[in-house]
Amino acid sequence: MSDSDPLVVFTPSGKRGRFPVGTPVLTAARQLGVDLDSVCGGRGICSKCQITPSYGEFSKHGVTARDGALSEWNSVEARYDEKRGLRPGRRLGCQAQVQGDIVIDVPPESQVHRQVVRKAASARVIEMDAATRLYYIEVAEPDMHIPTGDLERIARALAEQWDIPAITCDFPVLTRLQTILRKGDWSITVALHKTDKDATPHLIGAWPGLLERTLFGLAIDLGSTTIAAHLTSLDTGEVIASSGIMNPQIRFGEDLMSRVSYSMMNPGGDVEMTSAVREAINTLVSEIAADAGVDTDVILETVLVCNPVMHHLLLGIDPVELGQAPFALATSEHLNLSARDLDLSTLPEASQVYILPCIAGHVGADAAAVALSEQPGKSEDLVLVVDVGTNAEILLGNTTRVLACSSPTGPAFEGAQISAGQRAAPGAIDAIRINPATKEPRFRVIGNDKWSDEDGFWQEVEATGITGICGSGIIEAVAELRIAGLLDSSGLIGSAAQTGTERCVAEGRTNAYLIHDATDQGGPRITVTQGDIRAIQLAKSALYAGARLLMDEMGVDKVDRVVLAGAFGAHISPKHAMVLGMIPDAPLDKVTSAGNAAGTGARIALCNLAARAEIERTVREITKVETAIAPKFQEHFVNANAIPHATDPFPELNSIVSLPHVSFNTKGEVEGGRKRRRKRA
Amino acid sequence: MSDSDPLVVFTPSGKRGRFPVGTPVLTAARQLGVDLDSVCGGRGICSKCQITPSYGEFSKHGVTARDGALSEWNSVEARYDEKRGLRPGRRLGCQAQVQGDIVIDVPPESQVHRQVVRKAASARVIEMDAATRLYYIEVAEPDMHIPTGDLERIARALAEQWDIPAITCDFPVLTRLQTILRKGDWSITVALHKTDKDATPHLIGAWPGLLERTLFGLAIDLGSTTIAAHLTSLDTGEVIASSGIMNPQIRFGEDLMSRVSYSMMNPGGDVEMTSAVREAINTLVSEIAADAGVDTDVILETVLVCNPVMHHLLLGIDPVELGQAPFALATSEHLNLSARDLDLSTLPEASQVYILPCIAGHVGADAAAVALSEQPGKSEDLVLVVDVGTNAEILLGNTTRVLACSSPTGPAFEGAQISAGQRAAPGAIDAIRINPATKEPRFRVIGNDKWSDEDGFWQEVEATGITGICGSGIIEAVAELRIAGLLDSSGLIGSAAQTGTERCVAEGRTNAYLIHDATDQGGPRITVTQGDIRAIQLAKSALYAGARLLMDEMGVDKVDRVVLAGAFGAHISPKHAMVLGMIPDAPLDKVTSAGNAAGTGARIALCNLAARAEIERTVREITKVETAIAPKFQEHFVNANAIPHATDPFPELNSIVSLPHVSFNTKGEVEGGRKRRRKRA
Repeated sequence: MSDSDPLVVFTPSGKRGRFPVGTPVLTAARQLGVDLDSVCGGRGICSKCQITPSYGEFSKHGVTARDGALSEWNSVEARYDEKRGLRPGRRLGCQAQVQGDIVIDVPPESQVHRQVVRKAASARVIEMDAATRLYYIEVAEPDMHIPTGDLERIARALAEQWDIPAITCDFPVLTRLQTILRKGDWSITVALHKTDKDATPHLIGAWPGLLERTLFGLAIDLGSTTIAAHLTSLDTGEVIASSGIMNPQIRFGEDLMSRVSYSMMNPGGDVEMTSAVREAINTLVSEIAADAGVDTDVILETVLVCNPVMHHLLLGIDPVELGQAPFALATSEHLNLSARDLDLSTLPEASQVYILPCIAGHVGADAAAVALSEQPGKSEDLVLVVDVGTNAEILLGNTTRVLACSSPTGPAFEGAQISAGQRAAPGAIDAIRINPATKEPRFRVIGNDKWSDEDGFWQEVEATGITGICGSGIIEAVAELRIAGLLDSSGLIGSAAQTGTERCVAEGRTNAYLIHDATDQGGPRITVTQGDIRAIQLAKSALYAGARLLMDEMGVDKVDRVVLAGAFGAHISPKHAMVLGMIPDAPLDKVTSAGNAAGTGARIALCNLAARAEIERTVREITKVETAIAPKFQEHFVNANAIPHATDPFPELNSIVSLPHVSFNTKGEVEGGRKRRRKRA
Repeated sequence: MSDSDPLVVFTPSGKRGRFPVGTPVLTAARQLGVDLDSVCGGRGICSKCQITPSYGEFSKHGVTARDGALSEWNSVEARYDEKRGLRPGRRLGCQAQVQGDIVIDVPPESQVHRQVVRKAASARVIEMDAATRLYYIEVAEPDMHIPTGDLERIARALAEQWDIPAITCDFPVLTRLQTILRKGDWSITVALHKTDKDATPHLIGAWPGLLERTLFGLAIDLGSTTIAAHLTSLDTGEVIASSGIMNPQIRFGEDLMSRVSYSMMNPGGDVEMTSAVREAINTLVSEIAADAGVDTDVILETVLVCNPVMHHLLLGIDPVELGQAPFALATSEHLNLSARDLDLSTLPEASQVYILPCIAGHVGADAAAVALSEQPGKSEDLVLVVDVGTNAEILLGNTTRVLACSSPTGPAFEGAQISAGQRAAPGAIDAIRINPATKEPRFRVIGNDKWSDEDGFWQEVEATGITGICGSGIIEAVAELRIAGLLDSSGLIGSAAQTGTERCVAEGRTNAYLIHDATDQGGPRITVTQGDIRAIQLAKSALYAGARLLMDEMGVDKVDRVVLAGAFGAHISPKHAMVLGMIPDAPLDKVTSAGNAAGTGARIALCNLAARAEIERTVREITKVETAIAPKFQEHFVNANAIPHATDPFPELNSIVSLPHVSFNTKGEVEGGRKRRRKRA
């Protein structure tokens, strides 16, 4: 190129260079290292390389009439526009040729490494950099006189057409290649997967001709009680469907330690539990794919996060070592597996599974995912991240140091072991207020927008009914009982005589608080029993004790901010959590929600290959604190049993405290999850 | 080390160096790169590092009394000697320490890269260099405060104790590691496999403590008609058992093309055939392991050779493309798979399978194995290698160039499609002579040493009976009929009237030659029918035409030497093969047998990792000739139909021509195969 050649400037990168007249824009972009997508390799059929010339006048047909800085709209573009429509002003980068000086904009959807913005306050921007990408190639036909195999000619086409010097091929895909190649008349789209940026690409999917669909991945948060999956586009990072299912291992034990015990007491018990969880994931995959109308053949990646016991049970490793000191993991490193390794038969055999590394025997890949999502190690403030679930993952740290532990809270926060408890689903009471004067409750039910004392509530609620109380509901109920003076600091519910309200009813030798009674209409009677209070006290004490243990280890008495995470983390009212003593006190505006941070971490790892390397490195730098053997943990646990705040510590907040819902994008998990539940009801 | 340090010289390598007094011999050997084995890494428990000091006086207790050039016999050696016995003069290299100048001999069995000598004239010496090796390690116990996984501590032990910087772990093995480590009280023997010399070792087997057994591999020659397996020590290269089984795919078609047709005509037919062959291999593996008394957990490698159709059917690839020009293979490269990929459920899931590369759509991994075994490309003479089977693989070449083709001979040479035909098994007639004067036959039966005209034959043969005629028997019969004047050059059997012998009997509109009739005792009637002659003529014409085609391509009229290979190649009489016109004429002393060269090639690849790289390189340099589309092939085929020699071309050889049996070692395949058959009868 010479100084007289036209100057081409790309935005937003600002990369620039001079190119001879007639150079296709895609070629210029590639030579400059501009991030411009292409699946078909410049053949004008995939439309991924759309660009917008930044000046000139553009008619519908994109002719750069004024300055002629690009070649005329050509027949390939016209055909594409006719068949699928090209937005006004857009050109195909592989067809439009440089004719003069020009500024060319690469719109976000044409960038491979496009950015996905999370809405949360603490949002980190995710750059798309999926481990699996599509490549369209045209393969030489077999020649009897140069007898190479079809796979070898595919490899040659990838080398010649995409500069990919070598590949490996997944065995089940190899067995189908011949048929696919012939069906596509020697053109084929292949999916290549890399375990890290320098790895040899591995062929894991193939389709005849140009594949018009995009690839999808699953981010799965495999919890002790629930399994949540997010079906995510590997092209845009968008979550197109979210779904959850109960972990069927609950029938072997509600919490992790009872499942470990089950395995110890029952030979083959671990195998039963492994089958159960794999079957559940298969069901979940089928459902989510059917819901989203996505064929499973394009679901080529899964990122899984889970605690160490679930990790071992999913992998088919007896978790017995995790039930006793020194809590040795079979492996702590990340794992790259295929769907067939895990009997995930509803996914293609070659579909890849990435499992995040574990931090320690009690601090799993789910905690690693939280660390990846929330990045405590990059915080200037001292931040406490609490991922609330059946097992709580707790991280405390800042740029100098990050500590981690887990704490066995049990399933009470998820609505289990609660007399009227249920999962957060339509019909569940998820918010409650008790008037300190009248001691009367008002509440809200999932699937309905009104409070129970608002006009029209009872008409509206008919659709869902009132079926029980979920985790956030029970937390608010206990805290409100305390503020209303119906509960003492030890957690004892007063009698009707002591409290002066008929809402406090005797149940056996203790009392309960009646929220809702529909037994006369054949409906449920929802109370908060003394047993419920005890279950929540145990759970919150464990959570608090874990946080305190990390604070001791860090040598601090308070933290600068608290991030609540977990499947229902987004729904917990920070005020009520503090009244209850679940978390250390902090200014209310310093308590934020990260939504399902473990799931978010899984999605970050799903969308960005470099993030996997990052978390693999990060977990090595986290200091693990083992709650099970720390004498201080027991001490903190016992001390945390009381319910500290007898009065509302934040009286200025007289309406419900609603944390912003967090989502990765417009169809993010939390919203999506709620919407889905509503739709299903 | 200084000039005053003792000088240590190792034989047979001649490597030498000075080492400080007190250096263990094993350490000295390692520093000099001397090939001295060790599995336990110098802990005095595996006894692999035995050495023989070459001077000094050695009592039973190995004290180097005269010169004290080695340290005294120590308690570790005494304990080992007591428990298992150490040969007089031997020391453990990890215990004996250098005290003065000394020459130390490393006996062959202490060398990792020991040489295995083949007995054949053209023997190439095989150096042991197995892809899978054992390593004994002592692993750090888990520490709650440094929470790494068991696998990561195994990797660390391998790095520290064996200088192996990184490993990967096969998934099914990972799931069992914790139990094995604890059973061995933190000592473990692991099997590491490498796909090539620079590959990261892959952990494919693990046993508690020191594994006292050695590893085994299987060399499998998967033929259209028979499947042969050789169970081989990966330590010594010795074949400890050989076994064969009929290929059950015969029920879908006797030759390859009829199986391809079956697949074309029957949807799912390829899947049926894949299951059938995999099941047969599973049966064969179980049987051979049981026969040899070897537990399958130590059978960690299989090398497979086969023709392209069997290759695709084994892999689960529809062979339809191989039934029509341009005969495109799904893949032509070598394959590294695991037993579970091929449903070889009688092997450990992580057991590795290596399949040699194919040369072309009709010239398979079996031909590649023959090339590896016979090395035509390293021959100064022009050598024709003919691997006789249902499909013949033919190689012609010398140091300048190697050509290859295959020819569809059909199963007649294996005794199929012959009226009284059978596999070479006890009871089968495998040699026959017809007296040119009396026209009377005499014959020999597998499982018996005597000829039928020798005293005691009839008593001896009672054990096996006379059940049929095998491939080498029918070839000799046809050739002898021609020499005896009972058959004309067109292959027509004369009538009793024309030939003057009652042995020529009418059968329908043609004649047959009666070899043996036991119908009056309820036994078989064994004849050579006109149909048998036609089948042999078709088979031998195809073989000859293939050889001629290569000779045309090479521009020669004759070859310097001929190597007969194949499952029954060792049993074919070269004289009779030439009478028949199976192979081009050559001096009889230039016709040698390579036994089952494809099987031998498989065993070379099994024992020596470098040989795999060698054959992967070599196949790329072989020129493939496609018989199916060469007009000259048809011409040669038609011309070869006649049976050329009307008289004995080698009358000086009046007794049976017996080629030397070829074997890899004292328990080689050919002998082993025959013995096994005998034993089974």
